[in-house]
Amino acid sequence: MAEFSLIQRYFQSKTLPHGSTHLGIGDDCAISHIPTGVQLVSCVDTLIAGRHFPLHTSAHAIGWKSVAVNLSDLAAMGATPYAILLALSLPHVEEEWLQAFSQGLADCCHKYGVQLIGGDTTQSPTLTISITALGWVKTGHAICRSGANIGDYICVSGTVGDASLALISALKQESSPVQTALDYPQPQLQLGQQLQGYASAMIDISDGLAQDLGHILQASQVGAVLTLETLPTSETLKHYPLTEQWHHQLTGGDDYQLCFCISPKNYQQFCKTYQYTPCIIGQITSSPELILTYHGQRQHLNLKGYQHFE
Amino acid sequence: MAEFSLIQRYFQSKTLPHGSTHLGIGDDCAISHIPTGVQLVSCVDTLIAGRHFPLHTSAHAIGWKSVAVNLSDLAAMGATPYAILLALSLPHVEEEWLQAFSQGLADCCHKYGVQLIGGDTTQSPTLTISITALGWVKTGHAICRSGANIGDYICVSGTVGDASLALISALKQESSPVQTALDYPQPQLQLGQQLQGYASAMIDISDGLAQDLGHILQASQVGAVLTLETLPTSETLKHYPLTEQWHHQLTGGDDYQLCFCISPKNYQQFCKTYQYTPCIIGQITSSPELILTYHGQRQHLNLKGYQHFE
Repeated sequence: MAEFSLIQRYFQSKTLPHGSTHLGIGDDCAISHIPTGVQLVSCVDTLIAGRHFPLHTSAHAIGWKSVAVNLSDLAAMGATPYAILLALSLPHVEEEWLQAFSQGLADCCHKYGVQLIGGDTTQSPTLTISITALGWVKTGHAICRSGANIGDYICVSGTVGDASLALISALKQESSPVQTALDYPQPQLQLGQQLQGYASAMIDISDGLAQDLGHILQASQVGAVLTLETLPTSETLKHYPLTEQWHHQLTGGDDYQLCFCISPKNYQQFCKTYQYTPCIIGQITSSPELILTYHGQRQHLNLKGYQHFE
Repeated sequence: MAEFSLIQRYFQSKTLPHGSTHLGIGDDCAISHIPTGVQLVSCVDTLIAGRHFPLHTSAHAIGWKSVAVNLSDLAAMGATPYAILLALSLPHVEEEWLQAFSQGLADCCHKYGVQLIGGDTTQSPTLTISITALGWVKTGHAICRSGANIGDYICVSGTVGDASLALISALKQESSPVQTALDYPQPQLQLGQQLQGYASAMIDISDGLAQDLGHILQASQVGAVLTLETLPTSETLKHYPLTEQWHHQLTGGDDYQLCFCISPKNYQQFCKTYQYTPCIIGQITSSPELILTYHGQRQHLNLKGYQHFE
């Protein structure tokens, strides 16, 4: 089957139009109108079968997740997504798999108002999904990793560690009460956008809280104290010993929650404006290190997060 | 080695800045200023080792080609590229290979004024390179596949068939006088931009002239007559029997020349303005078929081009 008909058959029909799209799938390139007063925000992320998801993961979940992890990167800038491009490499054309995969991809696109505007499908021994996400942010309002200030609160947008816990069950082909955290991550786009003008630095947690917070600290040339007793923890994860909880929460990855820094003053204003109280898990310090405490006691843990090359 | 350092070490240092880049490699997303009065043009293309290039192809050539094939898609819209994003999946980190690959990628970027603004590297059994290219075109001036009119000349920007001929030698690990046509395609960006306002429809030839012209005919709901004696042919290819020449030229692919349609009136004006006479290889007709003639004699050839799934 030719590339042309594969994209048309499975993906184009499920794609809802976005007002900014002048030309979508079907030509050499897509063409989009970018509003005035914004900057273009773009990123790419790849999922590889057996590496970024267990081989028996449902095709629908793979489709959802491959979009969601990219939208999460846009969320981490405070940006609004509008389109994705799909590079799909498949061992073979399997009708049922493609129907479910394209539906999962489309479901995530619909939920967040994103259109699939282009793609390339090709044959490969390894199932590989690369998605480029495009969005925009009001000029000068993107939230980068490099803006954290000493004294800022460190916050996370929701529970961490569940996806890592679910992965253990998934690899044993067992079900887990937190399976959806692994299979259907929810990019925190609305919160990311609301944090414009409030947060000083932000990142999404894909490789583990410790490693990703470390990127903020490095880019901002600051340190941090994390108070482990304040980490948001699901009821499921609470059943495990503390050190196991911390392992999943700090180094597990695949959370796709936002980790952001915000001054105490801005935190108060944000809570008042949005009637929402983000969970504070620590504070930015001047000493260039990441210190972990549990009820005032310093903890020394191995904080190696997900490594893309081992 | 972590993803962060891999991109920093091999790619960031070789990347020349583009004036539109507000934030490049190193955050969750890249941020770009898009000029006013333009539309964003985007595309993605994937190269897989052993499928889109022979396994022993030089790393430098792979780097060059993976950028060039994407810029060629932008050329086919008449667009100006400004940035790429790289999704690189590698079996393992090999210093020498990465140095040469990143240099080839950078060389092609430099030649065409493009900046690498983001990327994702990950481990995979199959070497896979997906590149997203971003560019812009003056609003309303993109040249699509769907605009061909009856009576338009059909033109190509240069010789076709050489890459296909070189592939035969490459697969035997023999050298070929037209090897560079296969390894170092030259995207026809300048010509593509010059054709704005002149050409009615355009495509780049990646899957074979017959198949790619077929996309124009289908999108424009027209037919064509190709005059085989007018196909631009290299001195090397001329040594082969006519049917072999035609096979390489019509179905071989990997040419990355532009195929475009242009009214006789616009053709004359274009030649006068740019002191350049594009090669006319046929004409658009109303009958919805592709007719091949050789000095007036109709030819019946098998025109199956490159299929992404066989």
